[in-house]
Amino acid sequence: MRAIIISIGDEILIGQVVNSNASFIAAKLNTIGIQVIKILTVGDDEEDILNAFTDHYHKADIILVTGGLGPTHDDITRTAVSKFFKTKLVKSYEARKYVEEFLEKRNRPWNEAAENQTLVPEGAKVIPNKYGTAAGEFFERDDKYFIVMPGVPYEMESMIEDFIIPFFKQKKTDLYIVHRTLMTTGIPESELANRLGDTGDFLHGAKLAFLPSPTGVRLRISAMGTAREECEARIQEIESHIRNKAEKFIYGVDEDSLEEVLGKILVEHNLKIAVAESCTGGMISHKLTNIPGSSQYFERGLIAYSNQSKIDILHIPKDMIEKSGAVSKDVAMAMAHGIRQIAGTDIGLSTTGIAGPAGGSPEKPVGLVWVGYSDINETIAHKFNFGDGRLRVKERATQAAMDFVRRKILKIV
Amino acid sequence: MRAIIISIGDEILIGQVVNSNASFIAAKLNTIGIQVIKILTVGDDEEDILNAFTDHYHKADIILVTGGLGPTHDDITRTAVSKFFKTKLVKSYEARKYVEEFLEKRNRPWNEAAENQTLVPEGAKVIPNKYGTAAGEFFERDDKYFIVMPGVPYEMESMIEDFIIPFFKQKKTDLYIVHRTLMTTGIPESELANRLGDTGDFLHGAKLAFLPSPTGVRLRISAMGTAREECEARIQEIESHIRNKAEKFIYGVDEDSLEEVLGKILVEHNLKIAVAESCTGGMISHKLTNIPGSSQYFERGLIAYSNQSKIDILHIPKDMIEKSGAVSKDVAMAMAHGIRQIAGTDIGLSTTGIAGPAGGSPEKPVGLVWVGYSDINETIAHKFNFGDGRLRVKERATQAAMDFVRRKILKIV
Repeated sequence: MRAIIISIGDEILIGQVVNSNASFIAAKLNTIGIQVIKILTVGDDEEDILNAFTDHYHKADIILVTGGLGPTHDDITRTAVSKFFKTKLVKSYEARKYVEEFLEKRNRPWNEAAENQTLVPEGAKVIPNKYGTAAGEFFERDDKYFIVMPGVPYEMESMIEDFIIPFFKQKKTDLYIVHRTLMTTGIPESELANRLGDTGDFLHGAKLAFLPSPTGVRLRISAMGTAREECEARIQEIESHIRNKAEKFIYGVDEDSLEEVLGKILVEHNLKIAVAESCTGGMISHKLTNIPGSSQYFERGLIAYSNQSKIDILHIPKDMIEKSGAVSKDVAMAMAHGIRQIAGTDIGLSTTGIAGPAGGSPEKPVGLVWVGYSDINETIAHKFNFGDGRLRVKERATQAAMDFVRRKILKIV
Repeated sequence: MRAIIISIGDEILIGQVVNSNASFIAAKLNTIGIQVIKILTVGDDEEDILNAFTDHYHKADIILVTGGLGPTHDDITRTAVSKFFKTKLVKSYEARKYVEEFLEKRNRPWNEAAENQTLVPEGAKVIPNKYGTAAGEFFERDDKYFIVMPGVPYEMESMIEDFIIPFFKQKKTDLYIVHRTLMTTGIPESELANRLGDTGDFLHGAKLAFLPSPTGVRLRISAMGTAREECEARIQEIESHIRNKAEKFIYGVDEDSLEEVLGKILVEHNLKIAVAESCTGGMISHKLTNIPGSSQYFERGLIAYSNQSKIDILHIPKDMIEKSGAVSKDVAMAMAHGIRQIAGTDIGLSTTGIAGPAGGSPEKPVGLVWVGYSDINETIAHKFNFGDGRLRVKERATQAAMDFVRRKILKIV
């Protein structure tokens, strides 16, 4: 089954609100094998809404509409729907019952706005709204489903989860879609593509999407088939192929973040870490401490932005900074070693680099970053070049530093 | 001028990625009076893309397309565009120049993927890509503009900001919409609304939107008119009214971030700051160092996550931590004072609190945060309660801590 989502609301068209409703609906439908083929946003304008309905009604099996069901003057979806189906708005006892219950629970009086919310286009089934007064509308005709929901995220979400998904799940489907995402870092999109080789050789009809971001490329595998197990088996095969070719770059699956994955690894290996940051300016510590329970393995961080702070706290020799420069292999190693020593942790991690936009030179351009790593056996440093864009340099260096630690602990070369 | 945004990408249709690109573009166009009338998302499918182009080409003055310009097999937008315009892909010297520069900076070799990225539909102007290899494409024909950009957010964003907005800004128009946003923090939406009073009394046809976020409420004023000066004068009046009522909560305008504003204030007052963070885990240092030139005023940061690090580096008496607890007014003050002393800066800033989800108690619930401030005249601390949600607590505490310093320096009570 194929679906189209129509989102209604000026607030999306002026960029005030991101259309996360559509993503939510798409992700949920996907899990039960319904494919969203188009997402459309139009404003709170009756003509635009009617045009959107007319243009798309015949292009999918399911049309899902959100927004414009509220009680205020700019909520015109209900009227547009009844015009589209050439039907009239009628008082629904069922809708009234839900509105009454809703207001009663909150000790709020019955009023004209509430009365309006009991109107539903004739022929529509009512979808109960647990968290608001706007009833959802469910039409089943011409061999298709036309579903209208409020735009308030949690009201819509509960309709999707409690009503829409169970309804379509029990329908027999002859097409499943299963997705799996592999999270990579440390390899550019084009190199990754080269490594994997000709996708035709291993995809056999499944799909593989490369989704790049500053911190790495996500690889999304999608398989379609008539049985879930069959799709999963095919994804498994493709994943094996990819892991064969690029295992060391893959740090996680689906929604995993590297800081989450690294946190688990540190816990499993019972290791504590301390961080000395220069160019990343606290971002590594910030990311690591975003994870609940990180105090178990994150001991301390130092943002040694000034040279004096590197000398004072990390005991880096002044002449090393003068001779090699603050952005150097020597200093990166001394920082990693120093923070490990003073914190008494198993691992010391450091960064020193030029985040820009100023401070670059021909020998040490903006984007040059040294990541230092120290444990009881060794102290080493790697050189990276992350290009420009201050925040992106910080992001990339942060990701590279965390991945450095991941690979060292897991002994991935 | 009216615009339609066409987003291309399976990742949006399966709900894996929220279409924040469209919101970004819509918000930016809005600031220069271009109205987005529709946002459309289709998958990585040539037929769907071509249909979307055909259906919408004649419905707006500007068509903006994002996504599918990368070097891999699922990137088919470039081909679709050239088919749509019945033109061919040609090697662009300009595109090649940008790709070469990009790879050179990163010490990456020229390869087939790069070669492919030099192809541009004939007749298109090249929009330079500062952060990737995919050139943007700009068509001006049939009295309209057809613009194709990559889907990677920061690549697209820089094209919008550096190229698209300046281009359309200088075009004449007969209806101006001028927006101005006042950035507030430290006051809830409802309280702010109360302070401002009845909007009818001061808006006189202009619009005021309250846009709440975890770090504060943005107030967006919009005025429409036939002359830019007229709109700006009306906005000026409304801004004065709002400032009269809520000046101390307003830290900036439009896209100002608090870290940027605070950075400027520190430079102007020739002050240096050092930060000792516990519950914010590096986020304050991270935010402050996001600002270019922050090494001028940010001396060092310490993430004193463990009690031992508070004792070792900040010389906080062990019995103070035992008696008052690590999350206490005493410790917040000692941290702020300690970091100022060891760093030799004008200002010391500290946070200690419970970010959650674990670690709360009836007396010290999740969300409790003490912010400490120290300068040569005084050392003080304020107590906040930021509710739950680990990242939200970190964000709110970071914002509150930075605003604390802003108000102290500017002597705002």
